[in-house]
Amino acid sequence: MHPLVEKILQGDTRSLARLLRSIDDRAGSYLSALTELYPHTGRASIIGITGNPGAGKSTLTDQLVAHYRRAGKKVGVVAVDPTSPFSGGAILGDRIRMQRHALDEGVFIRSLATRGNLGGISRSTADTVRAIDAWGADVIIVETVGVGQDELEIARLAHSTVVVMAPGLGDEVQAIKAGILEIADVFAVNKADRDGADSTVRDLEAMIAMGHEVHHSKVRKGPHHGPQTVDMEALAEVAGDEWLPPIVKTVASKAQGIDALADAIAKHRAFLFDTPLGEARRRARVEAELLNVFRSTLVERAVAELGAALHEAAGRVFDRSADPYTESTALVRAFAERALSTR
Amino acid sequence: MHPLVEKILQGDTRSLARLLRSIDDRAGSYLSALTELYPHTGRASIIGITGNPGAGKSTLTDQLVAHYRRAGKKVGVVAVDPTSPFSGGAILGDRIRMQRHALDEGVFIRSLATRGNLGGISRSTADTVRAIDAWGADVIIVETVGVGQDELEIARLAHSTVVVMAPGLGDEVQAIKAGILEIADVFAVNKADRDGADSTVRDLEAMIAMGHEVHHSKVRKGPHHGPQTVDMEALAEVAGDEWLPPIVKTVASKAQGIDALADAIAKHRAFLFDTPLGEARRRARVEAELLNVFRSTLVERAVAELGAALHEAAGRVFDRSADPYTESTALVRAFAERALSTR
Repeated sequence: MHPLVEKILQGDTRSLARLLRSIDDRAGSYLSALTELYPHTGRASIIGITGNPGAGKSTLTDQLVAHYRRAGKKVGVVAVDPTSPFSGGAILGDRIRMQRHALDEGVFIRSLATRGNLGGISRSTADTVRAIDAWGADVIIVETVGVGQDELEIARLAHSTVVVMAPGLGDEVQAIKAGILEIADVFAVNKADRDGADSTVRDLEAMIAMGHEVHHSKVRKGPHHGPQTVDMEALAEVAGDEWLPPIVKTVASKAQGIDALADAIAKHRAFLFDTPLGEARRRARVEAELLNVFRSTLVERAVAELGAALHEAAGRVFDRSADPYTESTALVRAFAERALSTR
Repeated sequence: MHPLVEKILQGDTRSLARLLRSIDDRAGSYLSALTELYPHTGRASIIGITGNPGAGKSTLTDQLVAHYRRAGKKVGVVAVDPTSPFSGGAILGDRIRMQRHALDEGVFIRSLATRGNLGGISRSTADTVRAIDAWGADVIIVETVGVGQDELEIARLAHSTVVVMAPGLGDEVQAIKAGILEIADVFAVNKADRDGADSTVRDLEAMIAMGHEVHHSKVRKGPHHGPQTVDMEALAEVAGDEWLPPIVKTVASKAQGIDALADAIAKHRAFLFDTPLGEARRRARVEAELLNVFRSTLVERAVAELGAALHEAAGRVFDRSADPYTESTALVRAFAERALSTR
C-alpha cells in the first residue's frame, strides 16, 4: 500500500496535502495512491461554483462552507484559476476572504493555479477532488473563475453546478449563451439587495424557458408583444421529469439566502440519485471523467515515449522537408509500436 | 490533388472559405488539403494581438489591417473566442467594427468560436492560419480575447505577439504575471491620450527590467527608495542580443501610433529571421506547432478507435468495479494494438 493512503483514509490532513503536491507535480507514485484511494471515493457531494468575476463567488463559497460546517459536515474547497497572465492577482485576494476557515480542521482549502501541464487543469482538479473525497469530505466545493473552455470541463466534474450572477454587471444575462444551461443546475442571483435583481431573475427565467424550447403559451404571462414573464410552475409541469434549474436570490455578504441555496443544491442531488434522468447524468459525468483521465494518460505517455522522435520531427518540419500532418500520423504509429514493446 | 488546393493557391477566396468550414467541422478530406498546402506556407508574417477586454484590440487590429492594405499587402484576420458561456456576445460587436474591410478582396476575415472539439481551439486556429497563409496572405493577424490557457497556446502560434494594454482599466499591470513576458514581443499602450498612459508605460518598463533580472543600478533612475524609472537604453545594452519588447503608445480610434506599432512588429520579425536567438525561437515555435498537431491527431484517432471500449470502461467505473486510472492504462494499450492492426 502507498505510504500516504492509509493516513489519508484516516483523515490525516498533512498526508492529503502531501499527495496533492505530488498530483500538482505529476511526481512520485501519485498515480498508485490515487488508484488505491479510488474505491473509497464517491461519497462526497461535489458542488461547482462558477460565474463572472465580481459576482461574489468567493463570498458565497465562504458562506456555504459555514453552512455545511454548522451541520457538522467535513468540507473541501478547491479554487481553480487556470492562470491567465491577465487575471493574475485576483485569486489571492479571494483566498484571503476564506481565512476564517483556515484553522478549522473540518475544512480543507486548496488553490490550483497550474498551467501548461499537458494533462490540463481539469485532470489535476479531478484528481485533487478524488483525493479530498477519500480523505472523508462530505461536501467538496470547486470554485472556478468562470471563463473559457477549461472551466466548462471543470464544471462537468461537479455533481451540481451553481452559476452565480449579480445584477448591475452589465447586460450579463443577454450575453450569456446556450452553454450556460448545459452547466447550470442552480442559479444564484447574488447581491440580490441591489437594483436590478428582479430583472436578472426574470431574464434567467426567460432563458430557461427558451432553453427548454417550451413555447407553450400558458407558460408566458403578459402581452404578446412587450415584456413577458414566465410562469415557472407551468413550465415545470411542461418539463415533466426534466431538471429545471431553480433561481435562488442571495446576499452572500449578509449571509442571506444561503439555506435556500443549500436546499436547492440538495434537491438537485436527490434528482441525480433518485431518478432515471439523474442516473443518466451521473453516467455521462463518469464517462467524461474517464475520457479526461484517458486523454491525459495517453498524451503524457506519448510525449514521454517519443521525446527525441518529436524533436527530430520538429527539425524536419522546421527545414520544411516534412509537414506536421504526415509527421504526426507517423508519430502516432511510432508511439503505438513503443507502447506495445516497452512493457 | 485535393479539388480546393489549386484554387486556394491561386488566391480564390471562396475555396479558402470552403476549406475553413471543413477544418471547423473536422470533415471531409481537410487533412489531405492541409498536407498538400503545407509546402506553400511559411511566407506570411503571423501577428498575434491579445490583451484584456476593453483594451481596444479590435480597433487596433482594424487600423493595422488598413496600414498593411495601404502598403499593398494581402491580409488575413482570425478572431478567436474560445467560447465561454459568459463572454458570449462581445465578439459579434467587435466583428461589426471590421466591416469597412469586409468588401475588400485583399482582406480575408474569419471568426473562430469553436468549443468542445477534442483537438482544441489552438489546433483549429493553427490549421486556419496555415490555410490563409497558402492562400497568399502577406500578413495574418490572430486576435484573441486574452484570457486562459487556450489564448496562451494561440499566442505561441504567432511570430510576433502584441499585448495591448490601456490605462484606466484598474491595476492591470500590477496584476499581470510573469507569463505575459513570455508571450509579449511588443506592448501597445492603447488609448494613450487618456490619463495614466505614462504610468502604464513606466509600470511595463519596470516589469520588463524585472523580467530580465536586470538589477544593474545603472538601469534604474531616481531615488533608491521611492518611485524609480527604468533607463530602457541602458537596459538594452545589458540585455545584449536578447529581444526586449518595445512599448508603443497608440490611440487606435484616431489612427495614432499605428506606423510605429507596425515598425516595432517589423523589427521583431527581423530579429526572428536574422539572429541566432531568433532562429531558436522559430524552432521552438515549430516544435510547439508539431506537438499541437500530434496531440490532437493522437486523441482524435484514439477516441475514434476506442469508441465502444471507452463506453464499456466508463460503465465499469460507474459500477465502481474498476477505477479510471487502471482502465486508462489498459485503454492506451488497447489503442496501441488497434492502431497497428488497422492500417
